[in-house]
Amino acid sequence: MTGPSPDGGVTGAAEVLRRCAELDRYSASPTHLERTYLTAEHAAANAAVAAWMQAAGLRTRVDAAGNQYGRREAGPSAAGGPALLLGSHLDTVPDAGSYDGMLGVLMAIAVAQRLRDVELPFALEVVGFSDEEGARFGKALLGSQAAAGTWDPAWWELRDEAGVTLREAFLAFGLDPDRIGEAARRREELVGYLEAHIEQGPELEAADLSLGYVTTIAGARRFQLTVLGEARHAGGTPYERRLDALVGASEAIVVIERLARASACIATVGKIAVHPGAVNVIPGRADFSLDLRAATDDERDAMWKRMEEEITALCEARGLGFSAEETHRAFAAPCAPWLQDAVRAGIAAADDSYPPGVEPRGLWSRAGHDAMAVAAIADIGMLFLRCFDGISHHPGEDVREIDVARGIDALEAAVLDVARTIRERR
Amino acid sequence: MTGPSPDGGVTGAAEVLRRCAELDRYSASPTHLERTYLTAEHAAANAAVAAWMQAAGLRTRVDAAGNQYGRREAGPSAAGGPALLLGSHLDTVPDAGSYDGMLGVLMAIAVAQRLRDVELPFALEVVGFSDEEGARFGKALLGSQAAAGTWDPAWWELRDEAGVTLREAFLAFGLDPDRIGEAARRREELVGYLEAHIEQGPELEAADLSLGYVTTIAGARRFQLTVLGEARHAGGTPYERRLDALVGASEAIVVIERLARASACIATVGKIAVHPGAVNVIPGRADFSLDLRAATDDERDAMWKRMEEEITALCEARGLGFSAEETHRAFAAPCAPWLQDAVRAGIAAADDSYPPGVEPRGLWSRAGHDAMAVAAIADIGMLFLRCFDGISHHPGEDVREIDVARGIDALEAAVLDVARTIRERR
Repeated sequence: MTGPSPDGGVTGAAEVLRRCAELDRYSASPTHLERTYLTAEHAAANAAVAAWMQAAGLRTRVDAAGNQYGRREAGPSAAGGPALLLGSHLDTVPDAGSYDGMLGVLMAIAVAQRLRDVELPFALEVVGFSDEEGARFGKALLGSQAAAGTWDPAWWELRDEAGVTLREAFLAFGLDPDRIGEAARRREELVGYLEAHIEQGPELEAADLSLGYVTTIAGARRFQLTVLGEARHAGGTPYERRLDALVGASEAIVVIERLARASACIATVGKIAVHPGAVNVIPGRADFSLDLRAATDDERDAMWKRMEEEITALCEARGLGFSAEETHRAFAAPCAPWLQDAVRAGIAAADDSYPPGVEPRGLWSRAGHDAMAVAAIADIGMLFLRCFDGISHHPGEDVREIDVARGIDALEAAVLDVARTIRERR
Repeated sequence: MTGPSPDGGVTGAAEVLRRCAELDRYSASPTHLERTYLTAEHAAANAAVAAWMQAAGLRTRVDAAGNQYGRREAGPSAAGGPALLLGSHLDTVPDAGSYDGMLGVLMAIAVAQRLRDVELPFALEVVGFSDEEGARFGKALLGSQAAAGTWDPAWWELRDEAGVTLREAFLAFGLDPDRIGEAARRREELVGYLEAHIEQGPELEAADLSLGYVTTIAGARRFQLTVLGEARHAGGTPYERRLDALVGASEAIVVIERLARASACIATVGKIAVHPGAVNVIPGRADFSLDLRAATDDERDAMWKRMEEEITALCEARGLGFSAEETHRAFAAPCAPWLQDAVRAGIAAADDSYPPGVEPRGLWSRAGHDAMAVAAIADIGMLFLRCFDGISHHPGEDVREIDVARGIDALEAAVLDVARTIRERR
């Protein structure tokens, strides 16, 4: 393209999608999109986003955790006052699509630009969080947890696949680990947090709707599971002498699916490795991940208890060892009713995919979001956009321009609804 | 140790076990034993074995495939005549034990040394085959197939994990790929082949016996299996939209065990990898290996057909793709009755673990051996030694000195029995 689309100019959907495509360039690989925390491509994406923020009239800074911020004050006399924070994240999984996270940041910048000359009863900030996926260090929400002040010093020793610690990666990126506390926002600094995001599920598409509002974000737990058997010769060892860790792990994976499918939970085993991993050796050890989500923490915890019992029993029956280490836990994060109302009002004003008289649809998010971390220090609200075939974390991730246009309109209207509420409170 | 053990000197069990320990030094790693084809440690092991062969009065050479040979003639007037070949292999799996292969080569050298001044009606050769496990290039029996003249030129393009082709590895080792044909032995050069090997199974130990003779070596087939689904976000994708390749592969692995366990076959899945392999992404693809063995080729092939049908059906039921590529096929190799007799006679003469009047025990080998390849050009016979707890392809591999002592005696007696038979035939 040679310039902004006539459809809304630099604050329209076509330009937002063009910027999503431009961010695809900042990747660890020329053939697929992979942008993880504290890499050169992270710095390059921050720089591109900062330029767009500045063009929208925002004053930019990178915080002590690598999060990219832009801010405008409520007015000259209100400098430093509380802000409504809009945003999402700029990092990706390996072999990612172009919209998960980035779209929400770029929509927020478009809204800030539209409201550049509109007086608001709060400062307006946009944030591109630096790590939501946790793809590099195996720990999700690092960027937004730094902003929420919930950083755990134990994380400094987390290592990436090349053996680099999080502390070393901070230093290599030009950040000072000793100043991580400066990234923490205080509750009184924030009016609230609004995040736009693709649904990453098929519900809006199935209902033929562009937008929905989020009621709650699923509680999640992740585990590293290990089945221990004994490595032996594949040919010489009869069945009665085998302690095959992979057959045990396979039974466990089938059980995990059966139990979750019969409930309202979602469970995924996304990684597996066996040792020693030779074609003619019985696996002596299998390590695999478990990602477990539910609408409430109680449902999630009851499901894990049931899974742990069944897997322990099936391993015992085979003479195998079983252990589980929790690597991540996120409490379910309900969206604040008044921000659910604001997002619903925004949708009602902007989304004409809804038939007349039909109320905006509320959904619970099975996926985690930065909003979960921010919920520790501010009320949160979320706007979901329809995505193609529910596909996410995959290059096939796609959105329609019309949905992005409605989404920008709805997010703008939601901000104005928040402004109205704040003014009424005074 | 400072010198040969008093128990049999350099032709005794203590010295053979000392030499096994010495070969442990020639490894890719200081912490575990891994000696694969055409590596520096392969060359070092060949050199050590050659020195022991020379001390036993054998003339040594490395053939065009890196196999280490030693030979003595039947007599000055019979130079170049047919040979009885004794041996096994010198390569190992990763994280191996000290006896699988090496023990048989070192026992053969001890027997050659004992018979150094004994007149025989054939030349005596000992071979340390260079590749039996196939650990480096994923193709087993490369050394013994070169000797059997069954080398396939397609193998030159096989690659190791670092991307090095077999052809490149030949050149780096100082071997000329164009001369591989020179490694091939002709049928008229060989009287037969005898191999001593640890059982790699628990049967002799369970029966409290030192030695057994092999009746046949299992037919084997290996496959690379692939289940194809679709990578999607672990949280956002409900069960009705999931095409989880790992759950399909897990069901397949459970089916493989169930079918093989209910038959006389042995099936092992030793390797598995999923793509993209992230904790919060549903696996879109799972690749896993299958190693299938049976006493006869018919049983093995019928079992594979059954497995392929059931796995195809379960994948279809889940909307997953399934494909299988055969990577290895070895026909079952029966031991020649007259060499079974010779080994049985050797055991009867040497193994007093057998109660009086009890016949030596015959076993079928579920593990593959160099003898399978050699069977293409010579009659084969095999002597099995009890090993600890059936453990093999693992550092816990162990043998008792008394069993090795009886094994050397039995192998020597078997060679003399072959000599008697050959003389009677004339």
